[in-house]
Amino acid sequence: MKSFINIPENSDFSIHNIPFGVGVFNKEYISCCTRIGDMVIDLATLYDYGFFDEIEGIDENVFEAYTLNEFIELGKPVTNAVRLKIQELLQENSKIADDEKTIEACFYDCNSVQMMMPVHVPNYTDFYSSIEHATNVGKMFRGEENALLPNWKHIPVGYHGRASSIVVSGSEFHRPKGQMKPADAANPIFGPCKQLDFELEMGFIVNKNTEMGDSISTTEANDAIFGMVLFNDWSARDIQSWEYVPLGPFLGKNFCSTVSPWVVTLEALEPFRVETPKQEPEVLDYLKFEGKQNIDIKLNVYLQPENGTENLISESNYKYMYWNMAQQLAHHTINGCNVEVGDLYASGTISGKEKNSFGSMLELTWRGTKPLKLTDGSERKFIEDNDTIIMRGYAEKEGIRVGFGEVSGKVLPAK
Amino acid sequence: MKSFINIPENSDFSIHNIPFGVGVFNKEYISCCTRIGDMVIDLATLYDYGFFDEIEGIDENVFEAYTLNEFIELGKPVTNAVRLKIQELLQENSKIADDEKTIEACFYDCNSVQMMMPVHVPNYTDFYSSIEHATNVGKMFRGEENALLPNWKHIPVGYHGRASSIVVSGSEFHRPKGQMKPADAANPIFGPCKQLDFELEMGFIVNKNTEMGDSISTTEANDAIFGMVLFNDWSARDIQSWEYVPLGPFLGKNFCSTVSPWVVTLEALEPFRVETPKQEPEVLDYLKFEGKQNIDIKLNVYLQPENGTENLISESNYKYMYWNMAQQLAHHTINGCNVEVGDLYASGTISGKEKNSFGSMLELTWRGTKPLKLTDGSERKFIEDNDTIIMRGYAEKEGIRVGFGEVSGKVLPAK
Repeated sequence: MKSFINIPENSDFSIHNIPFGVGVFNKEYISCCTRIGDMVIDLATLYDYGFFDEIEGIDENVFEAYTLNEFIELGKPVTNAVRLKIQELLQENSKIADDEKTIEACFYDCNSVQMMMPVHVPNYTDFYSSIEHATNVGKMFRGEENALLPNWKHIPVGYHGRASSIVVSGSEFHRPKGQMKPADAANPIFGPCKQLDFELEMGFIVNKNTEMGDSISTTEANDAIFGMVLFNDWSARDIQSWEYVPLGPFLGKNFCSTVSPWVVTLEALEPFRVETPKQEPEVLDYLKFEGKQNIDIKLNVYLQPENGTENLISESNYKYMYWNMAQQLAHHTINGCNVEVGDLYASGTISGKEKNSFGSMLELTWRGTKPLKLTDGSERKFIEDNDTIIMRGYAEKEGIRVGFGEVSGKVLPAK
Repeated sequence: MKSFINIPENSDFSIHNIPFGVGVFNKEYISCCTRIGDMVIDLATLYDYGFFDEIEGIDENVFEAYTLNEFIELGKPVTNAVRLKIQELLQENSKIADDEKTIEACFYDCNSVQMMMPVHVPNYTDFYSSIEHATNVGKMFRGEENALLPNWKHIPVGYHGRASSIVVSGSEFHRPKGQMKPADAANPIFGPCKQLDFELEMGFIVNKNTEMGDSISTTEANDAIFGMVLFNDWSARDIQSWEYVPLGPFLGKNFCSTVSPWVVTLEALEPFRVETPKQEPEVLDYLKFEGKQNIDIKLNVYLQPENGTENLISESNYKYMYWNMAQQLAHHTINGCNVEVGDLYASGTISGKEKNSFGSMLELTWRGTKPLKLTDGSERKFIEDNDTIIMRGYAEKEGIRVGFGEVSGKVLPAK
């Protein structure tokens, strides 16, 4: 499949992708959009031009929206049809390949479009599904022998996060202040957090509302998932470690989380599915699943100091996940907890086995004991003021590449 | 202050109250409303009749709404003016006391109005602010000596809950299923939870949106709080105890929470303010506060078996709270976490010192070891199928009563 649009080598946005997002065009007009190569396509105008007329179930207001929620709520039969129609229109010799009027009206250079939060997130849950991450953290805080807690291999452990402070890539935030208790102090102290961290995660977005009391089984899960995003679950380790027993992370997490602007559909990721790592002991029936439920997505994290260059500090992969998305969603709803369109379910930090594949500073520097050396000669135990963290992710196989672009965020000094 | 409306003795809805809610009138028309005695007043129609014309900043759509969010977002100057105007209109000899047309159009018997969720809740947080509750739970799970964790007296400990499954009083829900690990079992089992519990709580509702990075100080907190509700944080103890380490409560809580339909304003509760219990050790500066920040609200819990009578099983009081609302909100936002209009912040289980003042079955039956005897001769270690839990709350002083009505919920068998 080739496009009439020129696609730069190694672009995440090949004709096989067709992700969805929401953009501000000409600094004033907001519309749902897609991207191919370095072009962003305004879907509301494309709709107005009649290109989606054959698809039943969409009306003009669906794309003329501030979020993708209305669109994704239409469900897979409609959203897949729209994606395939866009893919068809973008192929060489398609009916718009030489249609200057449509191209001028709908196609924008990506640098001219300001991307917004792709969805309104009614509920956000964060899982803890990488065995390497859970083991690393366990070793640091509880020692080698008790690294994995007894429930970890039976339950895709998760907790509710804060939806209000999820922002789109490119946003800046102030270093959080809070209570911390240094190991040698008798009493807690107050101030800017000293152990600011990122967490390399991915998240999936749900496309339906369920009723309280209903569950989504592992076999139904993929139909309920619209697509995925890159996710940085910023964490203040010193605030977190003082507050989190017994009710879990709270102010150590809820000051900011950052998502990528493009939602890549499960359908675009289909060719990159791989087996989930073997789960031993065997899981309970409601967590059993069929087929390839992991996805081979290469994930890179870069730290960029103010006015400096990007330092690659981690190379991980979404395929390492011990618990897959179908299991996470089945577990989350087995008690009748209802889901809502736009809900974001994040993976938890994605670490691999190798030291350069760890998905947080906490693990990369082993709680600050092994600082990272940067190309400018400086060192990092944790993230410093004015540092930018950039995460990129893509799947690639047999010359086909489908990627997420990036999620980046910059830390400003405490207010 | 007397009203031209006949108010039954011991009504929670005296002329001093004037709470806000959302009701379905004549089974089809939805409007924001208030209540006095046994009458519910349709505020959209009262607005149409011109009674709020003098108040700047409200338009007709504010009351013709499915939630109170738009109204409460107007802020205290407007919402207080509306409440005082309603109070004025309801007094004897007011200009509507003999206005049959207005009374017929706006006043409904409370039994004819179906109450809805009063607000859309964008974010829900549950605190853990009763020292008696935290101590009781600590004793049961960690023993007498380690009952209170080291952070408890320094931090108003809290966690994010699930907003999607908050429902209004009168709703039924199915007993949740999930993973549990009985003490004597080698592996976890799956099935309907066996230790279903209530938690007697109150919640407050925020009236503003803040920017990420901003904080609300203890002195600013009361202006940001519209009012309070009764709150039942249903809990599945056996699911919770297996899942909650290390990231906190999740499926043990997120299947259902229930709120009262009436939001009682902080202004109506003003006369019932009392001192917060002494906090020792001294708290950090950002948690210090001035004035009377606790409120004397009597709280009663009833268990009603199917076709049976109500059994009073707990008598507690909101004044017992160790951490007050101003401290909770100041703590929640000290790291820059933004709040949104309609956010619900719940107290955590409200227990007193006496055994009959404990706010959960877990405490009342001491983890099932001391079953409660009901008037029908049956016993309860935890809540059984088809039981209804009813919570009522009111403040009373010098003959003035301001109350919440009730929050009730019935447990159906597992699906």
